[in-house]
Amino acid sequence: MGKSIRNIRIVLLLVCGAALLACPALAVYDEKEGTSTQEEWEKAFKEWDSARQVWHEPKEAPNKMPFPDSYRDWNVLSVSYREDKESLRVIMGNDVAMLAARNKYFPPWPEGTILVKVLWRQRRLPTWPEALVPAELIAIAMMYKQKEQYADTLGWGFSVWNRLKRTLPEDFDATVEECVECHAPLKKSDYVFTMPAILP
Amino acid sequence: MGKSIRNIRIVLLLVCGAALLACPALAVYDEKEGTSTQEEWEKAFKEWDSARQVWHEPKEAPNKMPFPDSYRDWNVLSVSYREDKESLRVIMGNDVAMLAARNKYFPPWPEGTILVKVLWRQRRLPTWPEALVPAELIAIAMMYKQKEQYADTLGWGFSVWNRLKRTLPEDFDATVEECVECHAPLKKSDYVFTMPAILP
Repeated sequence: MGKSIRNIRIVLLLVCGAALLACPALAVYDEKEGTSTQEEWEKAFKEWDSARQVWHEPKEAPNKMPFPDSYRDWNVLSVSYREDKESLRVIMGNDVAMLAARNKYFPPWPEGTILVKVLWRQRRLPTWPEALVPAELIAIAMMYKQKEQYADTLGWGFSVWNRLKRTLPEDFDATVEECVECHAPLKKSDYVFTMPAILP
Repeated sequence: MGKSIRNIRIVLLLVCGAALLACPALAVYDEKEGTSTQEEWEKAFKEWDSARQVWHEPKEAPNKMPFPDSYRDWNVLSVSYREDKESLRVIMGNDVAMLAARNKYFPPWPEGTILVKVLWRQRRLPTWPEALVPAELIAIAMMYKQKEQYADTLGWGFSVWNRLKRTLPEDFDATVEECVECHAPLKKSDYVFTMPAILP
């Protein structure tokens, strides 16, 4: 019995690996490219606003990562702009993460650290077109440090939640594999890309 | 006596106005242009880190705006990237601002709203060069809604604090004049450029 489960696992892993190799450009996030117009932003804002009441069913990813609803009240760790993806991002941390960041108790990041990255499509601010600002939500990506629980994925739980409805990627495990692949070379920084921004 | 003070005020205003006209490119912020290297970022990070203990004398701007030390624990209102200034920004709000933002009780923003914008020079993330991320701190710019107290400046107190040491611009009043000049056309949005980002 144990052996056949192991076999199924190996087959699944091979299938996922093959899919990844066959399609190296497979997007981890369900991203739209290009610069958003004011109309598109307004449409997205209305959609967000009218759906505020229906988001809040508790959700959990297949790897047991919950969606931490309180993340909006977390603090800023950094921001980023991806010119290749034409998207803006903010990176926030829970209390464990912020304590470590502010006191330089990292790397490694302490057990229980959660890092949340919110990704938006870019738009131009109509009142100041040189400024690129957030438009529609693309996704929320998270890392949850639980060394033993996530020993198979660098000691971090990875999850990605798409769009307003926080839907999980169709092939969640393949998405996590892609996360791991990009983060794996960063052993020196405990597999984290973000460095805390200077907030004096 | 009252008349001579008024005269001095008028002369000062004319001098400031002349200085502004003579130098239209006068930067509101003490900004460095260009993309920062990893070495510059490391130098800035060390400078920040070694000076953490000396920032915290209470400070107040000439227009009675205090520097709110607690801003680091405020929540994210939005982010922005200024391609012309090669800088990244995060905009945070105090509790009054966030309650208004999340419930769409704006514009106008309620009395007591404080909006803080942190500006950083950009750098390329060495581990992912397509990502532009914060380097050295440029400045912190703030708006404080007190309709009566700041009736002369659109109902908002404006202040700018430069670099790690939070120094005030040499000619603070001229800086505020520049703030007002750019924000004045935005009556429809209560003189605020930032629109809250979608944080589902």
